[in-house]
Amino acid sequence: MSDLTLTTYDWVPEPPRGYVRDLRVRWALEEAGLPYRVESTPFGDRKPEHFAHQPFGQVPWLTDGDLSIFESGAILLHLGELSDKLMPADRRGRSDAKEWLFAALASVEAASQPWSFFMFSGDTAQTPMRKQFDDFLKVHRLKHMETVLAGREWLAGTFSVADILMADVLRLVNRFDGLADYPACRAYVARATARPAFAKAHADQMAHFAAADAARG
Amino acid sequence: MSDLTLTTYDWVPEPPRGYVRDLRVRWALEEAGLPYRVESTPFGDRKPEHFAHQPFGQVPWLTDGDLSIFESGAILLHLGELSDKLMPADRRGRSDAKEWLFAALASVEAASQPWSFFMFSGDTAQTPMRKQFDDFLKVHRLKHMETVLAGREWLAGTFSVADILMADVLRLVNRFDGLADYPACRAYVARATARPAFAKAHADQMAHFAAADAARG
Repeated sequence: MSDLTLTTYDWVPEPPRGYVRDLRVRWALEEAGLPYRVESTPFGDRKPEHFAHQPFGQVPWLTDGDLSIFESGAILLHLGELSDKLMPADRRGRSDAKEWLFAALASVEAASQPWSFFMFSGDTAQTPMRKQFDDFLKVHRLKHMETVLAGREWLAGTFSVADILMADVLRLVNRFDGLADYPACRAYVARATARPAFAKAHADQMAHFAAADAARG
Repeated sequence: MSDLTLTTYDWVPEPPRGYVRDLRVRWALEEAGLPYRVESTPFGDRKPEHFAHQPFGQVPWLTDGDLSIFESGAILLHLGELSDKLMPADRRGRSDAKEWLFAALASVEAASQPWSFFMFSGDTAQTPMRKQFDDFLKVHRLKHMETVLAGREWLAGTFSVADILMADVLRLVNRFDGLADYPACRAYVARATARPAFAKAHADQMAHFAAADAARG
């Protein structure tokens, strides 16, 4: 029996709301129908207790009884092993789900995150370095994801934690219009975020931070 | 019973030799004492057969009977589940090893890889974007890894796949002198790469590419 508590920030500024990574964990928990509590850690003053759970001072982390787990990928892997709604049952499907869980982070987000730094900066100078990061994301990653997603509904056969992670990564690219040339990627994000569990997770995160605004008065 | 075949490029130029990611897999296989074969795929002309195993056209991938796995993190997780020399036996230790496997990729390498783009470019202009990537790696990642590694020999209590991945990630930072201010990180890399299994894996990768030079005449 699991005893799950998700910890996220007590408050964040407007721009990242709806994109804080606790959303990935909320989404998985809602898909699985697993009961959980949500707790807060200060965004402003990060204490040793915070670093004891998350050594980089970020969120989220999940506790399950005596285990404390950070890294959204590791948390999703843990939840995938708790619920057959989050991971295929067969050996091949499980291996594919784990492989794509890593690919979403180490291949796609590793390229989309530095690209998003340029987008957030508002600096539109077409430097060679900007072009290198743009190619890293589009030519080396999205072009290939487009081929993959044109041929399948979900990454590991049935919906899994890999889709939660990949769709959440691509969602931020889409926010900056980075999927304009990749219709299969856009359709995949639309398909994934149309799931009721995503809507619930997203609304819960927005409400969590809105409540913090209200408490600040 | 496992039937393991690792595939890497048939040849690469000089600069990445000793750093191609098949090294992570070779290292783990050597630590575990698992028998394996090494096969080659063309570096120059990447065919549909290559993309069928690795959708981004990269290396490595591992086959284990009917399974084909790409992403170095996913391969190391698979091997960690095959050998008790690669993952602690207890529930807590296993959870920690998996969490750090993800952290090496999604927290540390996600910051060190874009940073290395600036290093490889040879462009030393101190732009705001360059500073942002430098801070992303050093202030937000290495400073915290220094605290973690000052307090423990290996990430998950005993040596595990997480250390193979983290040490390999930090090794490339060290190549560009990025660990100068982080003595515990440097000592960790030295400790990990002093292991006979690393030396064997490194020598084997160098010999693999040297043999390709010889075949080219």
